[in-house]
Amino acid sequence: MKKVAVIVAGGSGTRMNTALPKQFLLINGKPVLYYTINTFLKAYNDLNILLVLPEEYISAGQEIIDAFFDYKRIKITAGGTTRFHSVQNGLKLIDEESIVFVHDGVRCLITTDLIKRCYEAAIEFGSAIPVIDSKDSVRVLTEEGNEPIDRAIIKLIQTPQTFHSKIILPAFKIDYKDKFTDEATVVEAFGLKVHLVDGEENNIKITKPVDLSFAEKILSGQKQA
Amino acid sequence: MKKVAVIVAGGSGTRMNTALPKQFLLINGKPVLYYTINTFLKAYNDLNILLVLPEEYISAGQEIIDAFFDYKRIKITAGGTTRFHSVQNGLKLIDEESIVFVHDGVRCLITTDLIKRCYEAAIEFGSAIPVIDSKDSVRVLTEEGNEPIDRAIIKLIQTPQTFHSKIILPAFKIDYKDKFTDEATVVEAFGLKVHLVDGEENNIKITKPVDLSFAEKILSGQKQA
Repeated sequence: MKKVAVIVAGGSGTRMNTALPKQFLLINGKPVLYYTINTFLKAYNDLNILLVLPEEYISAGQEIIDAFFDYKRIKITAGGTTRFHSVQNGLKLIDEESIVFVHDGVRCLITTDLIKRCYEAAIEFGSAIPVIDSKDSVRVLTEEGNEPIDRAIIKLIQTPQTFHSKIILPAFKIDYKDKFTDEATVVEAFGLKVHLVDGEENNIKITKPVDLSFAEKILSGQKQA
Repeated sequence: MKKVAVIVAGGSGTRMNTALPKQFLLINGKPVLYYTINTFLKAYNDLNILLVLPEEYISAGQEIIDAFFDYKRIKITAGGTTRFHSVQNGLKLIDEESIVFVHDGVRCLITTDLIKRCYEAAIEFGSAIPVIDSKDSVRVLTEEGNEPIDRAIIKLIQTPQTFHSKIILPAFKIDYKDKFTDEATVVEAFGLKVHLVDGEENNIKITKPVDLSFAEKILSGQKQA
């Protein structure tokens, strides 16, 4: 089946103390977004990318594409006021039956393994949400204070959140609600369950300067391997 | 008030694919445990350390102390079959009223700031459990599948879990139960609530080779600062 990755890169980068949004920061001389896009393109030859960027960074995104990639496989579109609206803008451009990956642009340590695992599961179950276990114990705040919760039943959610187009396209016709923190919650509001798959510990969001160093280390290791 | 840090270093290091337990692996030429111990000793001049090690690594621990530290401030004792039993062994050596920090030996990025924050809160509230927010969305497994849970009410637990000796010493006279995954759960079984304080994102457990690289980066930065 066709594959489309909606790569959402809407963040303004305030946590990095830098004017440049974190998806444009450099790792080994190339922008964070380069690595994200490159891994999706490598995963499948028939995968196309819809890159959703804040209006004011569309030209910066175009420069990355021009410098590194086959422009025919990548389209840029403008983001909206929330992640939901940004994803919605990307999904509007999908007109063929496909498996749709929705991915955080700043998760640049994504691997082709994880992309393929999500694809296979989405083919079989209609959806694939990558999750990892918490390495730390977990507590939940209650009205009376806080209490432990078995960390074996707690899952930390990553992307690419992956769906059959026949599920995610109609699901995103819904009106926005604050509880839509990711695509899985939208699909659930549409009335469907989501299927979890194993994520990867290294598949972090780049949000702090030290994350860039971490990513640099991992990506240098991959090159040697 | 007197301060005692019970530093628990019982892990066997299987996730690192190395024979040496991870608390003895080197960062910039010094063992992980060196950094952990050093930060506690720096935090307060009247803080003493009880280092709990697997029987077979006591001599390795002694070598670290002899090489780097004032031996009068550090005692080593043997660990038990679980974390609970290891902590219990350490606590048995405390005979003065004090604030007791129980800390994972492999959390070597602990800062004096965090230690002091825990101390102040434990003085005021009797306990201080450092926690951080999840950067990722969170789901909880249910009998029917899985569902989102508001990540604002989910807290990931770190150490040092810090208590007044009048709380933790009697609490640990209890019989072991499987649900005792940390010291907070023991104190709760004793009938008391625990107080949460802000932890630190960098205060990770060293469990994978890439964590060592991360720690190296952070610790090198601290030296320059």
